[in-house]
Amino acid sequence: MDAEFDPASAAKPGDPRFFRRSPPHSVAAIAQALDAKLANCTAEDSGRLISDVGPLHAAGPAEISFLDNRRYAASLEATKAGAVIVHPEFLPRVPKDSVAIVTPEPYLGWAKVTALFYPPANPAGGVHPAAIVHPDAVIGEAAEIGPGAVIGARAEIGAGSIIGPLAVIGEGVVIGKACRIHAQATVSHAILGDHVVIYPGARIGQDGFGFAVSGTGVFVPIQHLGRVLIGPGAEIGANTTIDRGSAQDTVIGAGVHIDNLVQIGHNTKIGKGTVIVAQAGVSGSTTIAEQVTIAAQAGVTGHLNIGKGARIGAQSGVMSDVAPGAEVLGAPAQPAKAFFREVVALRKLAKGGRKPNQTTPTD
Amino acid sequence: MDAEFDPASAAKPGDPRFFRRSPPHSVAAIAQALDAKLANCTAEDSGRLISDVGPLHAAGPAEISFLDNRRYAASLEATKAGAVIVHPEFLPRVPKDSVAIVTPEPYLGWAKVTALFYPPANPAGGVHPAAIVHPDAVIGEAAEIGPGAVIGARAEIGAGSIIGPLAVIGEGVVIGKACRIHAQATVSHAILGDHVVIYPGARIGQDGFGFAVSGTGVFVPIQHLGRVLIGPGAEIGANTTIDRGSAQDTVIGAGVHIDNLVQIGHNTKIGKGTVIVAQAGVSGSTTIAEQVTIAAQAGVTGHLNIGKGARIGAQSGVMSDVAPGAEVLGAPAQPAKAFFREVVALRKLAKGGRKPNQTTPTD
Amino acid sequence: MDAEFDPASAAKPGDPRFFRRSPPHSVAAIAQALDAKLANCTAEDSGRLISDVGPLHAAGPAEISFLDNRRYAASLEATKAGAVIVHPEFLPRVPKDSVAIVTPEPYLGWAKVTALFYPPANPAGGVHPAAIVHPDAVIGEAAEIGPGAVIGARAEIGAGSIIGPLAVIGEGVVIGKACRIHAQATVSHAILGDHVVIYPGARIGQDGFGFAVSGTGVFVPIQHLGRVLIGPGAEIGANTTIDRGSAQDTVIGAGVHIDNLVQIGHNTKIGKGTVIVAQAGVSGSTTIAEQVTIAAQAGVTGHLNIGKGARIGAQSGVMSDVAPGAEVLGAPAQPAKAFFREVVALRKLAKGGRKPNQTTPTD
Repeated sequence: MDAEFDPASAAKPGDPRFFRRSPPHSVAAIAQALDAKLANCTAEDSGRLISDVGPLHAAGPAEISFLDNRRYAASLEATKAGAVIVHPEFLPRVPKDSVAIVTPEPYLGWAKVTALFYPPANPAGGVHPAAIVHPDAVIGEAAEIGPGAVIGARAEIGAGSIIGPLAVIGEGVVIGKACRIHAQATVSHAILGDHVVIYPGARIGQDGFGFAVSGTGVFVPIQHLGRVLIGPGAEIGANTTIDRGSAQDTVIGAGVHIDNLVQIGHNTKIGKGTVIVAQAGVSGSTTIAEQVTIAAQAGVTGHLNIGKGARIGAQSGVMSDVAPGAEVLGAPAQPAKAFFREVVALRKLAKGGRKPNQTTPTD
Repeated sequence: MDAEFDPASAAKPGDPRFFRRSPPHSVAAIAQALDAKLANCTAEDSGRLISDVGPLHAAGPAEISFLDNRRYAASLEATKAGAVIVHPEFLPRVPKDSVAIVTPEPYLGWAKVTALFYPPANPAGGVHPAAIVHPDAVIGEAAEIGPGAVIGARAEIGAGSIIGPLAVIGEGVVIGKACRIHAQATVSHAILGDHVVIYPGARIGQDGFGFAVSGTGVFVPIQHLGRVLIGPGAEIGANTTIDRGSAQDTVIGAGVHIDNLVQIGHNTKIGKGTVIVAQAGVSGSTTIAEQVTIAAQAGVTGHLNIGKGARIGAQSGVMSDVAPGAEVLGAPAQPAKAFFREVVALRKLAKGGRKPNQTTPTD
Repeated sequence: MDAEFDPASAAKPGDPRFFRRSPPHSVAAIAQALDAKLANCTAEDSGRLISDVGPLHAAGPAEISFLDNRRYAASLEATKAGAVIVHPEFLPRVPKDSVAIVTPEPYLGWAKVTALFYPPANPAGGVHPAAIVHPDAVIGEAAEIGPGAVIGARAEIGAGSIIGPLAVIGEGVVIGKACRIHAQATVSHAILGDHVVIYPGARIGQDGFGFAVSGTGVFVPIQHLGRVLIGPGAEIGANTTIDRGSAQDTVIGAGVHIDNLVQIGHNTKIGKGTVIVAQAGVSGSTTIAEQVTIAAQAGVTGHLNIGKGARIGAQSGVMSDVAPGAEVLGAPAQPAKAFFREVVALRKLAKGGRKPNQTTPTD
C-alpha cells in the first residue's frame, strides 16, 4: 500500500504503475517517424538512444522534449534534454549537447513522439467471462469486450474495437473498427464509423427532450425515430450526452472532437473536424458546419445554422445564425470585437460617476 | 458488418434495425385515435391504409405527415403524403390526393400518431439471469430487470416497470408502476410514482453538497436525512443529478420534465408540470411552482421562490424571487423586456465613439 | 407496495426505510460529544434522553434541534424541542422546557449531532460474489467491494474503504483507507488519499482534451502520461469529470470539495480546502490556491493562477489571474463591486430614453 498522498511526486510523467513505455529509439529513427530533419547533430549523434519524454526543464540526456511556445525559449537554451523538437527558427537556440529534430509543426511532432514512446494498448482480444453478450451479437476479429459489459441483440462490434468494463451497447448498434468505448458508456440507436472514441459515462442515443403539450396540460412524448450517426475518428467526452433524432438523425461528422459534459440535442448535425469544448450545449435541430470551434460553456439555441470555420467564444449564448468564419462572443452572441468594445464602454460608463482618484483592486 | 458511415442515409426515420413498426392503420382509424375529423376525403378514401410516418417533403401515398409551423405551408401544398394532420385553417391548402386529418392541435396529433405506428415496447418481464437482485427486494408483476442491474434489499419495483442494464436501485427504494429506469442510472433514498422515466446515467438520491466548516477549517458533513420524491409521469434526463434532502425531502412534482445534465440541489421542491432544459441548475432549498419553464444553462440560486408559470430564459442567473407569470432573462436576471432594452442601449453606447461609416460584420 | 406519491409525507427526516438511527443519547452525552456547554438545565435535566433530530418547528420533547440563522429566532422561542443547539447570545431566548447546548459554532454542532444520531454505515467488509476483482488486485482489511464492481489488476483498495455497486477501479489505481467510492463511478490512472469520497458517476482519470492539428486538418492526440492525485478528505460530486494530466499530474488537494457536474481539465492543481460548486468548470493547466471558492456554473480558462482565498461568483467567466482574497464576478470576471456598479449604470442608461412614469414589473 502506498496510498500516502504526495503532490510532490507529481513531477514526472509516465508512472510505470499506469503507463507502458516502448524500448529506446535512436534520434534518427525518431526524426524519420516524425518526417522531420536532424540538425545540431554529428553522424555519431544520430545513433543516440532516447528512452523517454520529458518537459524542457526536467529532461535529461536520454530524454526528448520540445518547444512549441516562444514564451519558453529560455528553457530551451537551458535544457539538458538529449533531443528537442523545434521549429527551424529556434534552431540557433538549441544547446550544443542537444540534438535538434526540426519540423514546422513541433507540437504535432510532440504528439507523435508521445505515441511512439507510449503506444496506446492494443486490444487483448476476446470476451471477458463476466461480459454479458447476447447470442445474436456479432463480435469482430480481435475485438475485446470488457468485464460486465452488456452487448445487445444484433449489435455489431468491429474488428479490433475495445468495449470497456460495464459499457452498454444496445440492440442493433453498429460499432466500427478500432473503436474505443470506455467504461460505463451507453450507446443505443447508433451507428459508429471506425476509430471512434467514446469516453466513460457518455450517453449516446437516448430519445431527446421533445413532447407535445395538450390543452389540458398533459405532456405527450414525441417518439424519437431517428438515430445517432458518428463519423470515423470522432471523439465524445466523458459524461457527454447526445440525443438521437426525432424524425431525422443526429449526425456527428468525421473527426469531430467533443469534450466532457457537453449536451447535443436531437436532430443536430455537426460537420467534419468541428471542436466543442466542455460543458457547451447545442439545442435541437441546429446545423453546425465543418471546422467550427465552440468554446467551453457556450450555448447554441435550436434550428440555427453555424457557418464553416466559425468560432464561438466561451459562455456565449448564440441566438441567431453565425456566418462562416465569424468569431462571436457574449450573450446574446455578437462579433467578438463588438463584444469587447461594449465591455470597455460599460466600464467607462460605470466609472463616470466616480472621482478620478478612485480605483478598484484590479482596475 | 455495415459500419460504413453514410450521413446521406440519415433521411428516413424508423430504421428497422432499431424500431418496430405496427401494422398499417386506415385513415379513419387514425382520425379516431387522434379524436380528429377527416376532410378532403371520400367514403372510399376513409379506408385508405397508411403504413408509416414521414416528413412532408419525403412522405409518399402510404405515409402520414403533419403541418405545425406555418413556415412550411409550401411543403404542405407540394406533399405526396397519403394523409396529413393539419389545423382547420390549413385545410384549403391540402393537396387533392391527401386525406386531411383535422385537429386544432396538430403537433399533439403527430405525437399520438408516432406512438401509434411505433408503440413503446412492453416490458418482456422477468429478471435477467445476470441481474443482481437482493433476496429481500420485491419485484412487481411483469416487471423487467435488465442484465447486470443491481436491486438492493427491500427495494420495490412496481408492476410493468423496466429496470435497464446496469442500473442501480438502492436499498429501500420504491419504484412505481410502468416506470422506465434506463441503463446505468442510479436511484437511492427515493420514492417514485407511476410512469416515471429516468434516462441513462441520471444520479438520484446521493447526499447533497452540505457541510459545516469548523474554526480550524475542517469540513464536517451534514448527514442528509431526507429523500427524493418523484411524482407520477415525471421524466429525468441523461446524466442529470438530483441530490436528496438534508432535513427535509427533495420533491419533483408530477409530470415535471427535466432534460440532460441538469443539477437539482438538496431540499428543492419543483411543482407539477414544470420544464427544466439541459444544463440548467437549481441550488438547494429553492421552491419552484407549477408550470415554470427554466431554459438551458440557466442557474437559480438557493432559498428562492419561483412563481407559477414563470419563464426563466437561457443562461439566466436568477438571484432573487421571480413573480408568478414573469419572464426573466440575463444575469442577474431581470424582466426580459428590460434585458433586451439594455442590450440595445449598450450597443448604441459602444458605437457612439465610432465614425458613422464603420460597421461590423453582423450589425 | 406503497408507491403512492405523497409530497405531504415530505416533512420528517430520517425515514427508517433508508436511515438507521442510533439509540437515544442523554443531553449531557450530546454536549460532551459536541464539546459544548449545557445551560437552561437542572442536574436532573442533564440525564434527559434525546432520541432523534428535527427542525425547530416540528421537534418534540424527545428531539434535538438547532438555531444557526437569526431569521428563525422566533421559531426558537416557540419550539417544543427537548434540546436546542444555540450560540451563547441566543441563550436568553431558549424556552424554559428546552435544554440549551451552547456553542459558538451551532451549525458545526448540528453537523456533529446528525452524525451522532445517524452514523454513516461501517463497511460490511468482504467482496460481493458478483464483484469482478482481478486476482492481482490487493483488497485491504475490512474493505467492501459491492455487487458488479470491477477492480483492475494491481489496484489497491485501502482498509475500510467501500467500493459501490458497479464502480470501476482501473489497473494500478490506489485507493486510500476509509474511502467511499459510490455506485457507477470510474477511477483510472489515479492515486487517492484516505477518507476520499467519490459520488456516483464521477469520471476520474480519463485522458484530457488535447490534440495537435496537422496542416492537413488531421487531429493527432497527445498521449496523457500524467495521473490524478486526490488528497485526503477530498470529495468529488456526482457525474463530475476530472481528466488526468498530459505531461504532469492533475492534483486535487486535501479536503477539496467539488460538487456535481463539474469539469476539471488536465494538469489543473487545486489547493487544500477549495470548494467548487455545481456545473463550474476549470480548463487545463490552471493553478488554484487553497481555500478558494468557485460558485456554480462559473468558468475558469486555462493556464491561470487563482490566489488563496479568492471568491469567484456564480456564472463568472474568469479570463485572467485572480489575486489572493479577491472577489470577482461577471464575464469577463471583474471585482464584484465593479460588476454591480456596471449593472446599475446599465439599468440607468437603458431607462434614460423612457418617460418617467414607465415601469417594468420588478423595477
